[in-house]
Amino acid sequence: MRNKPIGVMDSGVGGLTVVSELWRQLPREAVLFYGDSVRCPYGDRSDDEIRRFTFKALDFLYEQGVKMLVIACNTATAVCLEEAKERYDVPVIGVIGPGARAAIAATEVQKVGVIGTRATIKSNSYPKALHLTHRGINVVSLACPGFVELVEKGPIQMDEALPIVATSLQDLKGSGIDTLILGCTHYPHLAKVIAAVLGNGVRLINSAEETARDVSHWLTEHAMTRVGLDVPEHIFYTSGDAIRFRTIGEAWLGKSIDVQFFDVWSEPGEPTKEWSCALR
Amino acid sequence: MRNKPIGVMDSGVGGLTVVSELWRQLPREAVLFYGDSVRCPYGDRSDDEIRRFTFKALDFLYEQGVKMLVIACNTATAVCLEEAKERYDVPVIGVIGPGARAAIAATEVQKVGVIGTRATIKSNSYPKALHLTHRGINVVSLACPGFVELVEKGPIQMDEALPIVATSLQDLKGSGIDTLILGCTHYPHLAKVIAAVLGNGVRLINSAEETARDVSHWLTEHAMTRVGLDVPEHIFYTSGDAIRFRTIGEAWLGKSIDVQFFDVWSEPGEPTKEWSCALR
Repeated sequence: MRNKPIGVMDSGVGGLTVVSELWRQLPREAVLFYGDSVRCPYGDRSDDEIRRFTFKALDFLYEQGVKMLVIACNTATAVCLEEAKERYDVPVIGVIGPGARAAIAATEVQKVGVIGTRATIKSNSYPKALHLTHRGINVVSLACPGFVELVEKGPIQMDEALPIVATSLQDLKGSGIDTLILGCTHYPHLAKVIAAVLGNGVRLINSAEETARDVSHWLTEHAMTRVGLDVPEHIFYTSGDAIRFRTIGEAWLGKSIDVQFFDVWSEPGEPTKEWSCALR
Repeated sequence: MRNKPIGVMDSGVGGLTVVSELWRQLPREAVLFYGDSVRCPYGDRSDDEIRRFTFKALDFLYEQGVKMLVIACNTATAVCLEEAKERYDVPVIGVIGPGARAAIAATEVQKVGVIGTRATIKSNSYPKALHLTHRGINVVSLACPGFVELVEKGPIQMDEALPIVATSLQDLKGSGIDTLILGCTHYPHLAKVIAAVLGNGVRLINSAEETARDVSHWLTEHAMTRVGLDVPEHIFYTSGDAIRFRTIGEAWLGKSIDVQFFDVWSEPGEPTKEWSCALR
C-alpha cells in the first residue's frame, strides 16, 4: 500500500503547482494526476456539477489504486472535501486547510489577506477555515479575475505582469495584512510579481507548498512514505488537449512528462463531450 | 472528546515554547502540561531512563483525559515517539518531524542546518527524519551546549548573547545552508540573536511553531478542534519547583499561569525523590 501513488485531481493544469511541490518535498513518491481540462474552469459551475465532476475524477483515481487523494483545486476542495473524506477509505487532503493553517502560523498581527478566483472568494472557504481554528483572525478577501489567464499565457514577464497585478491588489496595500494566502493553485507562478507589489512586509503563503507539507505530515506520521530505490513513475491524464497540457506541464514542472488523454465520462471508444459540450 | 485538553509533556520548561505556539495558533484549545523539571535534562540519561520517565509522564496526562499527546522535548521524541504512537489510542505528535518537514519545504538548495543539544545531535534524529522523506537533503548538524542555560538565565540581552552565539555557530557560516532547524525547544528565544549572526540568507525553522502547525492540521482534519465559547482552562504541573517554573513560564508566555507541584513518581503524601536523587 505505501508504494502506491498519490492521486491528485484538478479541474485543469493549476494543480501542477501541487505536483511540483510534491516532487520537491517528497521526491520518492509517485504521482497519478487527473486534470479535467475539458470542463475547466469549475469556478462558474453549480455545486451539483462541481460535485459530480469532482467525484467522477476522484473515483477514477481511487479505482487505479492510490494511497491518498489530493484535491488540488480550491473550488473542488470548497465543495467536496468533507464528503470526499467520508466516501473513500484513503485520506483526502484539499488545498484550503493547509494554506489557512500556515497563514495562522505566519501572521503576527492576526490580519491575513486571501486572493483567489471569484468563485473561491465568493465561497468564503478561507475565512471559514481560518476561523475554524482561530476566531480572532481578521481576513481581507479579494478576487483577482485575470490572474489565471495571465499565468496560462506563458512565462511571466515582470514588466507586463506588474501593472496588472498592482492594479488588482491595490485594495490590499495599506490594509494592514502581514500575510497573504495565494488561494488559487495558479498563483504561485505570480509570487515574484505579487511580492514586488506588496513589498517585504507581507509574507506570501503558497497553498501548493503547504498542501505538500501536509501530505508529507500524513505520510510520515502513518509510515506510508514510499520505500525502495526505484525511480517513481508519474502518470498524467487530461480530459482536454494532451499536447497543450504537456506543453504547459513541462514548462511548469521543468521536466518532460508523459501525458495521456482520458476522459472519465466517456465510454471506451466514444467521444468525450457528454458534459463539456452541454455545459459550456 | 473534542473539548478535552491537549496533553503536553516536556522534561522541563523548554516545551513552553510549544504551548506558546499552541495558544497563538489554536487559541480555543485547552492545554494540560507536565514538566518533569526535577529530572531535567533528559539529554544525558540512558534511553531506558528516558523511556521510563517519558511514559510515566505521558501515562499521567493520558489518564487525566486528553484528546492528543504532544512530546515537546527533542530527546524524549527521539527515544519514545514511535512506541508512544503504539501505546495510546489518541494521536501523539513529537517535535522532530514537524521541524524536519518544514525545513524540506523551506530549503531551495537542499542544504539544511540543525542545531540542538549534544544529546539531540548525537541521536541523529533530524538527519533521519529529513532523509525519511527526502534522501537528497544535505544536513549540517551542530551541537550548541550552553544555549539552554543562556535562555533559562532570563531575558536575552543581545550584546551579551551575540558573541556566545556567534562563536558557537561559527562552523555554520559559509556552510552553504539556506535553512536552519532550531532543534531544541529553548532555542526560539534565541531566534533574533541567531538571525543576527547568520544573516538574511538563512531561514530559521522554529520547531515549536511547526509542531503547533501539525497539531492544528490533525485537529482540524479530524474535526477535533474544541467547540463552544467558554475560555479554555490551562493547567501546568511540574515535578520541580513550582515557583521557579511559574516565574519562567509567565515571562515566556506573557501571562499569568496556574502551576501546581506534582510528581508522577511519588505516592500521595510521599516525598518525590525516588528517581531524581538516585540518578543525578
